[in-house]
Amino acid sequence: MADAVLFEFLHTEMVAELWARDPDPGPGGQKMNLSVLEGMGFRVGQALGERLPREMLAFREELDVLKFLCKDLWVAVFQKQMDSLRTNHQGTYVLQDNSFPLLIRMASGLQYLEEAPKFLAFTCGLLRGTLSTLGVKSLVTASVAALPTCKFQVVIQKS
Amino acid sequence: MADAVLFEFLHTEMVAELWARDPDPGPGGQKMNLSVLEGMGFRVGQALGERLPREMLAFREELDVLKFLCKDLWVAVFQKQMDSLRTNHQGTYVLQDNSFPLLIRMASGLQYLEEAPKFLAFTCGLLRGTLSTLGVKSLVTASVAALPTCKFQVVIQKS
Repeated sequence: MADAVLFEFLHTEMVAELWARDPDPGPGGQKMNLSVLEGMGFRVGQALGERLPREMLAFREELDVLKFLCKDLWVAVFQKQMDSLRTNHQGTYVLQDNSFPLLIRMASGLQYLEEAPKFLAFTCGLLRGTLSTLGVKSLVTASVAALPTCKFQVVIQKS
Repeated sequence: MADAVLFEFLHTEMVAELWARDPDPGPGGQKMNLSVLEGMGFRVGQALGERLPREMLAFREELDVLKFLCKDLWVAVFQKQMDSLRTNHQGTYVLQDNSFPLLIRMASGLQYLEEAPKFLAFTCGLLRGTLSTLGVKSLVTASVAALPTCKFQVVIQKS
């Protein structure tokens, strides 16, 4: 009995429930659903971030914070590490997961590619929320070129 | 970093999101929200049940199935065992958790008692769904007399 899949099942149900209310929400409704998911992810990320040991909340380098997301956060949520982390050294980071767990079940063909955004919104929020608790304001977007590989782009917002 | 709390945070967000759409849903809307949560729990329970080792799916005694829920399922979802299991030996079981994790955060006073049902519906469904995969049709209800103690009543439906 694996409790690791509990999050995955619950996430699937959440996405299904939002879309079940309005099976053909149109561009506006689609956007609202994505924003609801992103918001839920943000608050879960914040809450997870608040449970970090204090010393972790005092990262000195931006890059350390991103490495923390790729290792510790990813393992806590998905039981695996992010596959790669790249940066332009100007506040933009690309985090790549070659087999993103929330996409694996639909990874069987190009025809599902357009369904991908609804399975990414929560996780974008999760990254943004955890960063927020760590004192880093950011914009997070996700893109999929070939399932189940997924790239999360984090752009740090300088204040 | 505890991933055990991930489920709890996500569950909280799910409840909040359902009620946020209609802060004062009235008796009918309240009931619909509870039924949505119960349905999500049912499907997650079914999915978890399907991941059981085959030999577990061939329980001989009804009581063994209930014991399985109290031990294995509860540990997988809540990282603790149910505190007690009682039965009238006529198909009714009462499962008691003296500090139900999804109620602990609101366990500070009687004034929150009326809010409790929304934090129990998903888990009622979870029990019913897992039982369903194990071949047992049931009705599951929950009651709270004093927070955070919670009783789940399982009534087996004989076919």
